[in-house]
Amino acid sequence: MNQINRVAIVGGTHGNEFTGAYLIKKFEQIPALIQRPSFETLTLLGNPQAFTAGKRYIDKDLNRCFFIDNLLDSRLSSYEDIRAKAIEQILGQKSNSQVDLIIDLHSTTANMGLSLMLGSHHPFLLKLAAYLSSRNSQVRVCYTQPEKGSNFLRSLSELGFVIEVGPVAQGVLNAEWFQKTEELIHNILNYLEKYNQNLIPQTNETLTYYQYVGAIDYPRNEYGEIQAMIHPQLQFRDYQPLNPGDPIFLTLDGKAIAYEGTSTVYPVFINEAAYYEKGIAMCLTEKQVYSL
Amino acid sequence: MNQINRVAIVGGTHGNEFTGAYLIKKFEQIPALIQRPSFETLTLLGNPQAFTAGKRYIDKDLNRCFFIDNLLDSRLSSYEDIRAKAIEQILGQKSNSQVDLIIDLHSTTANMGLSLMLGSHHPFLLKLAAYLSSRNSQVRVCYTQPEKGSNFLRSLSELGFVIEVGPVAQGVLNAEWFQKTEELIHNILNYLEKYNQNLIPQTNETLTYYQYVGAIDYPRNEYGEIQAMIHPQLQFRDYQPLNPGDPIFLTLDGKAIAYEGTSTVYPVFINEAAYYEKGIAMCLTEKQVYSL
Repeated sequence: MNQINRVAIVGGTHGNEFTGAYLIKKFEQIPALIQRPSFETLTLLGNPQAFTAGKRYIDKDLNRCFFIDNLLDSRLSSYEDIRAKAIEQILGQKSNSQVDLIIDLHSTTANMGLSLMLGSHHPFLLKLAAYLSSRNSQVRVCYTQPEKGSNFLRSLSELGFVIEVGPVAQGVLNAEWFQKTEELIHNILNYLEKYNQNLIPQTNETLTYYQYVGAIDYPRNEYGEIQAMIHPQLQFRDYQPLNPGDPIFLTLDGKAIAYEGTSTVYPVFINEAAYYEKGIAMCLTEKQVYSL
Repeated sequence: MNQINRVAIVGGTHGNEFTGAYLIKKFEQIPALIQRPSFETLTLLGNPQAFTAGKRYIDKDLNRCFFIDNLLDSRLSSYEDIRAKAIEQILGQKSNSQVDLIIDLHSTTANMGLSLMLGSHHPFLLKLAAYLSSRNSQVRVCYTQPEKGSNFLRSLSELGFVIEVGPVAQGVLNAEWFQKTEELIHNILNYLEKYNQNLIPQTNETLTYYQYVGAIDYPRNEYGEIQAMIHPQLQFRDYQPLNPGDPIFLTLDGKAIAYEGTSTVYPVFINEAAYYEKGIAMCLTEKQVYSL
């Protein structure tokens, strides 16, 4: 990566995640906030119809519509499939204005603080993540799935990543998270400007990150109905160590269910509202330290 | 009121308010929990299709479908209109099993603790509310609108009331609120049992309650788009005094907007997700003390 020429900030990829959607509204009203001398910054409201309706999506999850095969498949005609193809035309490799970096803004009902969700170990992203997490202890770095073949919007750019902020309820605009997310975006844009000006110092840094190793569903009965909830001792304890034998669920009739793994893990997306339908009560990660 | 013979507990009147819906599931699995010697307790999942879909409603807000005229109007045929008529057949005055008291379980993204939302000043409800709030400081008592002509489900019974618990995100089952709500229900049922056995002592009590006096919408532009959010100093401060000149909103570009009223009020439903579409950023109440 020689130079960042064009950056995209996307919000409202999920229509009921208001933090990002309203930041896009703000940046559209005051574009000077996100302009920097050495590169261009675009904004995009990911799913306008879902945002208007106050829903995550109209027909299907837009942030699962970006498999290359799906983008090429003319038979896929749901609102989100069509929207994904349109977004690829605006931001993707085949567009005239291909962006070098995508920041996709999300929120979560889990206590994720300010989480950078990366898809690749690209050295540029690692250094950026190390810089941001060293400046703000609320910034966490998380690897969910390998970027190759990802169906996420961020996969339209080699340097695409997601920011998850929370806990914040769906359909709610929370001023505190709005301000923290905006500050993080400014730190990112300022870093990119320094990078272009070759002002990023070489340092021997380490980066602590959380590597996805699996997911756990809620205990369910034969009809698929949930029979247990996140244990109160685990609720809102994202990124905290979960040891074998620690309680993870509490059945409706009051019995604790222990974590049966064989090693310590670090759960994230604990009790994320949007993941009930995906069969995910939490994602498990391993804590790792990377020397840059 | 001589004797309570039949009580209904309703949950999931809004399909994405999981606390009540899963309590109904629990009580259906273990009915002995809500049985008492002197009266019968029914359970009802208010909006089954919306609960399955994880949405507040399918076509329209079920908890605004109970105007008497609407229940009699055969032309109203949305899913919720039909469901409201069915619920009236089960719980209402014309049913064979008319209930004497309805507990309708809701949750809110606002910091409402355990709120009893009453529609009438019926002495029985006032004494019950005083008893519950004296036992648990998280219990608040709130009057929203006069019961006469109410469109709420609770209006099917003279002794109908709503329990609002929160803050809890829509579409999330939170174990702590589940447990607190269940405990409150048990306290209510135990009180009703004592009432039937004439074991409620006469006391000179006072009841502090919050009387609805109006609502405030978010500042919006000419297209109806929200231009300001709840001020961080007001977020989650439900039932706390708001004085003239205190900040209530923060515009997207960072300017505080002050409360312009002439007297101290006590906001509730601050930043309730479901009220964005109703044009309500918060409800205002006045604090009042009633001598029983």
